[in-house]
Amino acid sequence: MDNLMTAQHAAGKVLVDPVFSVVKAAKDAAEKYGMEKVVNATAGTIYDDQERFSTFSTVADVMNDLSPAQMMNYAPIDGIPGYGEAAIKFVFGDSRPDSYLSAVATPGGTGALRHVFFNYADEGETILIPDWFWGPYRIIAGEFKRNVDTYQLFTKENNFNIESLQQKVLQMLKKQDRLVVLFNNPAHNPTGFSLNEEEWKATLEFFRDVAKDKSKHIVLLLDVAYMDYAGEPDKVREFFSLFGGLPENILVNVAFSMSKAFLAYGMRCGALIAISSSDKVIEEFQEAASYSNRANWSNVPRLPQELFVTLTNDSGLIERVNRERQQLRRMIEARAAIFTKEAKQLGLDFCPYTAGFFISIPSDNPQEQAKKLQEQYNIFLVPLKKGLRYAICSIPISKISGLAQKTKQVMEG
Amino acid sequence: MDNLMTAQHAAGKVLVDPVFSVVKAAKDAAEKYGMEKVVNATAGTIYDDQERFSTFSTVADVMNDLSPAQMMNYAPIDGIPGYGEAAIKFVFGDSRPDSYLSAVATPGGTGALRHVFFNYADEGETILIPDWFWGPYRIIAGEFKRNVDTYQLFTKENNFNIESLQQKVLQMLKKQDRLVVLFNNPAHNPTGFSLNEEEWKATLEFFRDVAKDKSKHIVLLLDVAYMDYAGEPDKVREFFSLFGGLPENILVNVAFSMSKAFLAYGMRCGALIAISSSDKVIEEFQEAASYSNRANWSNVPRLPQELFVTLTNDSGLIERVNRERQQLRRMIEARAAIFTKEAKQLGLDFCPYTAGFFISIPSDNPQEQAKKLQEQYNIFLVPLKKGLRYAICSIPISKISGLAQKTKQVMEG
Repeated sequence: MDNLMTAQHAAGKVLVDPVFSVVKAAKDAAEKYGMEKVVNATAGTIYDDQERFSTFSTVADVMNDLSPAQMMNYAPIDGIPGYGEAAIKFVFGDSRPDSYLSAVATPGGTGALRHVFFNYADEGETILIPDWFWGPYRIIAGEFKRNVDTYQLFTKENNFNIESLQQKVLQMLKKQDRLVVLFNNPAHNPTGFSLNEEEWKATLEFFRDVAKDKSKHIVLLLDVAYMDYAGEPDKVREFFSLFGGLPENILVNVAFSMSKAFLAYGMRCGALIAISSSDKVIEEFQEAASYSNRANWSNVPRLPQELFVTLTNDSGLIERVNRERQQLRRMIEARAAIFTKEAKQLGLDFCPYTAGFFISIPSDNPQEQAKKLQEQYNIFLVPLKKGLRYAICSIPISKISGLAQKTKQVMEG
Repeated sequence: MDNLMTAQHAAGKVLVDPVFSVVKAAKDAAEKYGMEKVVNATAGTIYDDQERFSTFSTVADVMNDLSPAQMMNYAPIDGIPGYGEAAIKFVFGDSRPDSYLSAVATPGGTGALRHVFFNYADEGETILIPDWFWGPYRIIAGEFKRNVDTYQLFTKENNFNIESLQQKVLQMLKKQDRLVVLFNNPAHNPTGFSLNEEEWKATLEFFRDVAKDKSKHIVLLLDVAYMDYAGEPDKVREFFSLFGGLPENILVNVAFSMSKAFLAYGMRCGALIAISSSDKVIEEFQEAASYSNRANWSNVPRLPQELFVTLTNDSGLIERVNRERQQLRRMIEARAAIFTKEAKQLGLDFCPYTAGFFISIPSDNPQEQAKKLQEQYNIFLVPLKKGLRYAICSIPISKISGLAQKTKQVMEG
């Protein structure tokens, strides 16, 4: 497509956002047929079993106590005092990696991911992501003319496909000396898969081996947006202790978001955290991320940063939030239990779900099948490249039973 | 500088932020010597004459009425329903240009500027800004390897230097077919200068003439961050009506920010508005800006968008905010009157101030003089490339008298 006024590089930019368009269709259907006849399985936000938007009362209480300046004044570019350390403390918990650590505030997880895609890959280079992936990864790469390639996340037996990951990494490192490899873990979007400790150990052993070639520079990017719905807070953080003491040519970047962890999606606050055995790499990280903050959005919203620092520095408050979150996690688990049980009984294949907001069903024709689910059953979900994604975070338990069967029916004919 | 882990393009990125470092020094001095002995003239935020951070009670009241979902849920990528139209209505008022218009939500003015620098210039191209300029323009350009060049904003007689602007534009258009030209107007940061109607007419006549060559594509970027402190709301908007009916190869982009207009700096909400005689250019703008939103920060904070839509759609509320803002404007005017009167009496040259947050004094040695003002008088201000910037928005009226004299003393010796 030709450009009119934009620069050459921006010619033909078009945002196709499958989530927001299906959201609208679901809303229209609910108005036409009544809420009770419609299953809205699109949005990655938690609704309770009465289909009400969920928030944490603890967060609201802390917000009520903030002063006008805490809500309205600028924040420093990197984050308010204490924010970075609070993010490191919250994200790693008792499993803090034994390495140099640093954190910069970002507007949600997207802001953090953007910095890594931009600052750790050059134009024309390729970033490695799993083949089941959150669509915006491709959009972020596209903005900056970075390419994405995929590895197969699962074997045929639905186990972690480390061979595919290894093969792709080695293949790509023949072409480029720097490589960003992305993991969305634990409670992967869109499948709910989590690597176990053995799988992480094998993965890191592989990267240690690759890093023996000092001309190679590897950035392991962990998107942990759904971590706090993957299980008990301490337990789901244990894998982080494996990231200490890696070779200096492996940098680990963790994209943290308050969106899901604190149900503060629209507040746009998160952090990019770096783990490295080299203080110089950390310093370089800090400079690059601060510069990118200043250049793209100036500073990160102050209000959610104040919330976060207050909450995480008060053991009583953080326990209260954890209890509230645990209730919602159990609510989602109960929904998932029904769906997966029925799917197994029917022989409906689904990706290896351990926890989280989404369950995905592999399909060769997701667009068509998603359309049929809409037309025949008023079930609204997001068709992915490789399957159908049910956002069980937003479907009340009363509407879960039968979804597997309807999905199977649509897929068979 | 060599890079360690970053991509080649990001090698040696270092953020030098003169404002935030001087802010810290001022805070330290206030703790050491007492607040009353220190003049903190650094921060571009309004403090009242009792040195309290200013906010609008109307904004706080509206905020108290927002629902949890209005504060916490995601916003659509472009902005919540009605936000774009509300931004257009607020920014243009009764002087809406007779053209196609469109708006996309952004995190503050910086987010809007970033989109223009990125989407309307290619790597290696040059963006034209005034020689008195807000430092981050250079940082934004640097992030994306765009260059900046400057035109002289003032003649020797302290009038608008349209000749310099014309000369630079013609010179640059010999080298590139696309050109972004930035205006920070009205109440320019850092000088408080505003173009009058005749100056705008002459400027637009020049660009209409340039645009007769259809191979040239001009983007006029108006940063209006300080507009609402430039005078009466209707009056300061009048110049916008001149931007209707421009040739199709001139696109006007307006960077709007809630930061100053609603004293919601840290909420990070603004908009990029486009004015064009071509619906296709507007469509292209909308697609490029939406894509860039998705790729950089996903969506813009919802809470301030809800505030803005509620406020601007209620004539009672917007009048209340306007009255609150008018009080602060008069407070700043009273400070400026003292400073400029004393400067004139002393023969201290200052840039042609009409209104706004800042007064600047031309200097050949601003770094040194700013240091002396700190050491000798505990006056903390931001040294610019071309002078000294007093943020009179934040200095209480009781501390204004004498500043001009101390500045003159330091400059003379």
